[in-house]
Amino acid sequence: MEKTESLHNLRHSLAHLLAAAVLELHPDAKRTIGPSIEDGFYYDFEFTTPPSEKDLPKIEKKMREILKSWKEFTHEEKTPAEAREYFKDNPYKLELIEEIEKKGEKITFYTAGKFTDLCRGGHLENPANEISPDAFRLDRLAGAYWRGDEKNKMLTRIYGLAFEKKEELEAYLTLREEALKRDHKKLGKELDLFTFSELVGPGLPLWTPKGTILRNTLDEFVWSLRKKYGYQKVEIPHITKKDLYEKSGHWDKFKDELFRITTREGHEFAMKPMNCPHHTQIFDRRQWSYKEMPQRYANTTMCYRDEQTGELSGLSRLRSFAQDDAHVFCRLGQVKEEILKIWDVINTFYGAVGFKLSYRLSMHNPEAMDEYLGDEKTWLVAEKSLRDLLTENNIPFVEAIGEAAFYGPKIDCMGKDSLGREWQVATVQLDMNMPERFDLNCINEKGEKERIVMIHAAIMGSIERFLSIVISHYAGAFPLWLSPIQVKILPISTEKHLDFAQKVFEELSAGGLRVELDDSNEGLGKKIRNAKTEKIPYLIVIGDKEKDSSTLTVEGRGDEKIENISVKDALALFLEKITSKV
Amino acid sequence: MEKTESLHNLRHSLAHLLAAAVLELHPDAKRTIGPSIEDGFYYDFEFTTPPSEKDLPKIEKKMREILKSWKEFTHEEKTPAEAREYFKDNPYKLELIEEIEKKGEKITFYTAGKFTDLCRGGHLENPANEISPDAFRLDRLAGAYWRGDEKNKMLTRIYGLAFEKKEELEAYLTLREEALKRDHKKLGKELDLFTFSELVGPGLPLWTPKGTILRNTLDEFVWSLRKKYGYQKVEIPHITKKDLYEKSGHWDKFKDELFRITTREGHEFAMKPMNCPHHTQIFDRRQWSYKEMPQRYANTTMCYRDEQTGELSGLSRLRSFAQDDAHVFCRLGQVKEEILKIWDVINTFYGAVGFKLSYRLSMHNPEAMDEYLGDEKTWLVAEKSLRDLLTENNIPFVEAIGEAAFYGPKIDCMGKDSLGREWQVATVQLDMNMPERFDLNCINEKGEKERIVMIHAAIMGSIERFLSIVISHYAGAFPLWLSPIQVKILPISTEKHLDFAQKVFEELSAGGLRVELDDSNEGLGKKIRNAKTEKIPYLIVIGDKEKDSSTLTVEGRGDEKIENISVKDALALFLEKITSKV
Repeated sequence: MEKTESLHNLRHSLAHLLAAAVLELHPDAKRTIGPSIEDGFYYDFEFTTPPSEKDLPKIEKKMREILKSWKEFTHEEKTPAEAREYFKDNPYKLELIEEIEKKGEKITFYTAGKFTDLCRGGHLENPANEISPDAFRLDRLAGAYWRGDEKNKMLTRIYGLAFEKKEELEAYLTLREEALKRDHKKLGKELDLFTFSELVGPGLPLWTPKGTILRNTLDEFVWSLRKKYGYQKVEIPHITKKDLYEKSGHWDKFKDELFRITTREGHEFAMKPMNCPHHTQIFDRRQWSYKEMPQRYANTTMCYRDEQTGELSGLSRLRSFAQDDAHVFCRLGQVKEEILKIWDVINTFYGAVGFKLSYRLSMHNPEAMDEYLGDEKTWLVAEKSLRDLLTENNIPFVEAIGEAAFYGPKIDCMGKDSLGREWQVATVQLDMNMPERFDLNCINEKGEKERIVMIHAAIMGSIERFLSIVISHYAGAFPLWLSPIQVKILPISTEKHLDFAQKVFEELSAGGLRVELDDSNEGLGKKIRNAKTEKIPYLIVIGDKEKDSSTLTVEGRGDEKIENISVKDALALFLEKITSKV
Repeated sequence: MEKTESLHNLRHSLAHLLAAAVLELHPDAKRTIGPSIEDGFYYDFEFTTPPSEKDLPKIEKKMREILKSWKEFTHEEKTPAEAREYFKDNPYKLELIEEIEKKGEKITFYTAGKFTDLCRGGHLENPANEISPDAFRLDRLAGAYWRGDEKNKMLTRIYGLAFEKKEELEAYLTLREEALKRDHKKLGKELDLFTFSELVGPGLPLWTPKGTILRNTLDEFVWSLRKKYGYQKVEIPHITKKDLYEKSGHWDKFKDELFRITTREGHEFAMKPMNCPHHTQIFDRRQWSYKEMPQRYANTTMCYRDEQTGELSGLSRLRSFAQDDAHVFCRLGQVKEEILKIWDVINTFYGAVGFKLSYRLSMHNPEAMDEYLGDEKTWLVAEKSLRDLLTENNIPFVEAIGEAAFYGPKIDCMGKDSLGREWQVATVQLDMNMPERFDLNCINEKGEKERIVMIHAAIMGSIERFLSIVISHYAGAFPLWLSPIQVKILPISTEKHLDFAQKVFEELSAGGLRVELDDSNEGLGKKIRNAKTEKIPYLIVIGDKEKDSSTLTVEGRGDEKIENISVKDALALFLEKITSKV
């Protein structure tokens, strides 16, 4: 058994154990569902009197007590009538039973000790032996709507953490503590990068001036890399008639997540969940010759998905987000060269932000061809082309069945951040299906129409999600090139030093730096503390010495300190650091 | 009587005359409505056998015949029953009669000669005397849905042109011919600036690489002007919960034009028709001190309006358009200084594109206060503030009652283009109502909360609508700084001159110019013709002489010709022209 599967079974067994303990302590609680998750497990209950965080140790103690008697999991198939009889007082389980019945699937009950639950299986064989009592703990409580839908009842979710060994739990807690300090939602507020408004609604962030600088600086960096490879910017409306998505297949595939609009004339429109269908229409505005291929369109623009309220989280999952999207329309024979160019963009970009990348070839699932556009033969051609490219260029990669986009296979780049956490970041997708559906072609050397292919390539993907990662990765202490405020000037006395401070401010601003001048009447200590809280990369304190000598002392966030430097040299130094992105 | 009113009466009388002539020639036609318009009049009919363009002279002749007998207009009030009896075979008039009746208004019939129509009045007293038979003509036919709604029947619209004097008609025709050559829809296609897709839908333009350069160049120019006045970029989602617009008043005011969305959880959302309510939420993220005021937010972003299909036209009227929007949140005492800054931005911008501006103070209509937010006292304060500003700065302006935005008075800038046509372009709006509704404030010198005000200031307004004007203004021959392609290099022989041409291309590109190299095998004549069709500002032909001497001959679109210039000097010359926007 693989490690991931055994860990899943351990966590899933613990979810059962949690429910068993809760029901002993709260016999009138109604249990609902309890899956294993990334770092442990949870179980959702409807309580008449919900427990508070301080009750968790009592439940945990009860779990450890019961655990001793859980020597095995047994299971039994039930008829719908039997299952309904058993759970007759629990409307949640009854709803699940009805669903399983409708799908024509088997209904199974799993039992350990005296506790039985409706379940599909996936447990440890002998929990008492296999679960280390000090490698799990109950973590926290949260409200959770039944099935994540806020129209339903709010339940109480109890989260637990679970690992195989005590040391793993401890290492996880240490990492989490560090990650919490770096939480992008907390830092976003402290550093004044973005905000949410109750009037605008959840999942719809509003970007402050500082946050907007972050977004635009990253986006301009991506553009500067793309530009040298011949990309051209295009612009598209954010809505479309239904017709476009019927043709592309999105109407069917994305139907639940599409924001749909019925116009006053009764037309059906949708807000775009992706940009590729719109871009095909720009390409398709005229007939192209093979001499004009490839056409490379770049477009940073917002996409929209009707996410459920319960699924929204900070910047990680939103209803509206910007993609730094690009599509290359090219001949099949140009795919490798074009992907290598994108490769260079991705590696330069992620190198600059300090992510270590690994690669995954995400392919179709041959057992679920109905989830994809097009026929399997086309898929195999596309996948071979990507695999050859990786192999020929000695790029190490893993293969992942079933992880493709619905229109084509992808190379997914996984980035490891400063805490060693791994995130899926850039993707490159090879698409032979959309060009077929939209009949995209060029006239080849023989004067015949030739089907072209499309490469989809987002570098950051969703800029918001990427920022949620990057804010945490840097713990808000952005490098000079990226920092919303790059240099702060702190005159010791506003009376004596403001003139020279103002002069420095103007010279550095005119040189293109993002500079702030603290002209408040606070003492220097307070000024420095404020600037440190704002995580400004460089501080310049202006006192008598600086004013008299017309030189500066530049202090970096770490130990870096440069004394007696002229304003001109300081500017040159900053600009050099910005250009080289160090 | 003012000239505009007499011209309206003339054109409106001609609409009646057109209907009279049509009914004599097509007794089975059903007349619907016939207003006066900007350059004449029209009348919509339902025909059993619609006329074609070649039938127009016949109708025109009939109009002149009838005109002789139209010595006066008389009118008579009718009861709904009488009116219905008269128009019993005409469902269109019956619908209008019902509407007038519902509104409780009077039903009046107007008669001239033997022709009677349902009408509110507004005619000449003696058409036979006052209409010059050679100062009007029938112009063209078009399809038009009844009431502009494509769910209704398609009618035949007959357009006529009409002026007081023959010379005016002739001058108008000459101007129109020139304008037609400069039509932005025609030029947009020829110069490959934008495209429409039937799958995406009408009113939703897609921007090609060249068109996107135009948009971005203009937008970056505006930003460069705003930046020096302390504006900061912000970014917002394009949708919002209904709640924001209920609070701002847009839900009520804009209800027909809002694209509304019901989410899968049943929430009501809308696509933004304006950006001000979102921007208030960025401002309102924290408490501000008077020392931090003003806050100036700039944001080029798309807005959406559910326009009826029949109302859409090229780039002039769209369902989705980008605004170069900005909002200044400031204290009342800061308004004048802030507006003068905006003034400078507007005048610099329109100076660069060669528009002569005049100004209009657009105020509320005291007789329709229910159409506006807030009380009249606040309006009078705001209007006085704008009037004083204009007067104190010796800016000539006209006052226009009833032309304000629903939240505050405006200074509207009217721009005269190269054909002498006048367009409403930039607006500056002073808003005391939105801050009241959203309770926006700062802490003043006394430590008390002080209500602030908002200034709304778009420079181009809708970039798309502005482009429709600018494309036509320049007849597509954009100045160097704005031109999507600035310089085209034409090697005479691809065999002998391509190397040096390539070198020139690379040097100019690296210098930041938008350059194209024509490396096709066409002859020089063809290459030059192509470049002229594309209206490229500068051409550089590369032959033996240039290659041997390593110098260039640069030819402008007019007579401008610079010989024996080095590549470096040519680059410097171009960059200088771009910076100074000549």
